[in-house]
Amino acid sequence: MKDFQGTPGTTGGLSLRCCQFLFAAIALCVMVTTSDFSSVTAFCYLVAAVGLQSLWSLSLAILDIYALSVKRSLQNYQVVALFAIGDGITSTLTFAAACASAGITVLIGNDLDSCAHNNCLEFETATTLAFFSWFAVLPSFLLNFWSLASR
Amino acid sequence: MKDFQGTPGTTGGLSLRCCQFLFAAIALCVMVTTSDFSSVTAFCYLVAAVGLQSLWSLSLAILDIYALSVKRSLQNYQVVALFAIGDGITSTLTFAAACASAGITVLIGNDLDSCAHNNCLEFETATTLAFFSWFAVLPSFLLNFWSLASR
Repeated sequence: MKDFQGTPGTTGGLSLRCCQFLFAAIALCVMVTTSDFSSVTAFCYLVAAVGLQSLWSLSLAILDIYALSVKRSLQNYQVVALFAIGDGITSTLTFAAACASAGITVLIGNDLDSCAHNNCLEFETATTLAFFSWFAVLPSFLLNFWSLASR
Repeated sequence: MKDFQGTPGTTGGLSLRCCQFLFAAIALCVMVTTSDFSSVTAFCYLVAAVGLQSLWSLSLAILDIYALSVKRSLQNYQVVALFAIGDGITSTLTFAAACASAGITVLIGNDLDSCAHNNCLEFETATTLAFFSWFAVLPSFLLNFWSLASR
């Protein structure tokens, strides 16, 4: 297994994890600060999904920092398989939540034109940040899956 | 490149393409028959996404039938790369559309409890079929990506 940038235990991998964690954590905070997110199932699901995403990315960022500080490679087949499966699941959940929230935000803002009574800006910000978090998980997943297949 | 079941030019690959096409085409028909789908952006997007998915899957199914009838292998690097990219894009679009529609269907049915004035059953059926179509594209994408990496 090659230790190319972006895979676990590299500085590229660590920066991807930090981006994932930051975007997911800010999306979580923005959504939770709105007063009425709990009345919409998709927004509750977004909170759960980005919560899980931030926990997963934070754990792997800590593992990357450890691996970099003791100069240990994480290119073990079982470890990379675990990372690929975890990234696959969390990225799918985050993307699903972001799409569902985007659908509802567009419904409120454009189709029903009732942004005046709703926190449209917060909903849009949280949704966009969830998409950003997904964009940062995708390379991690594809790189892990690729290095798994090309072992 | 190994010619394992599920990759292009095999009977497994052909059955996956047929499932993708059937689910996407039925989802398209069910959604188009509702009178008010065009008032919701996410439902219009679902129609576009499953339309594209059904065209893509139908084209590749025809290619699979041709490859099987003349006993030709489709395991060429460029061809598999093209299939992997196409599957990646169409599956992402279909999944995004299915999630956005699911968010709105749950909003109408559970959160607002206004199924009486809406075609909830049709919306739910089309969304479920779009998810089924995505479930059938996912193995195609992962197998193509895997056989690309393990060349």
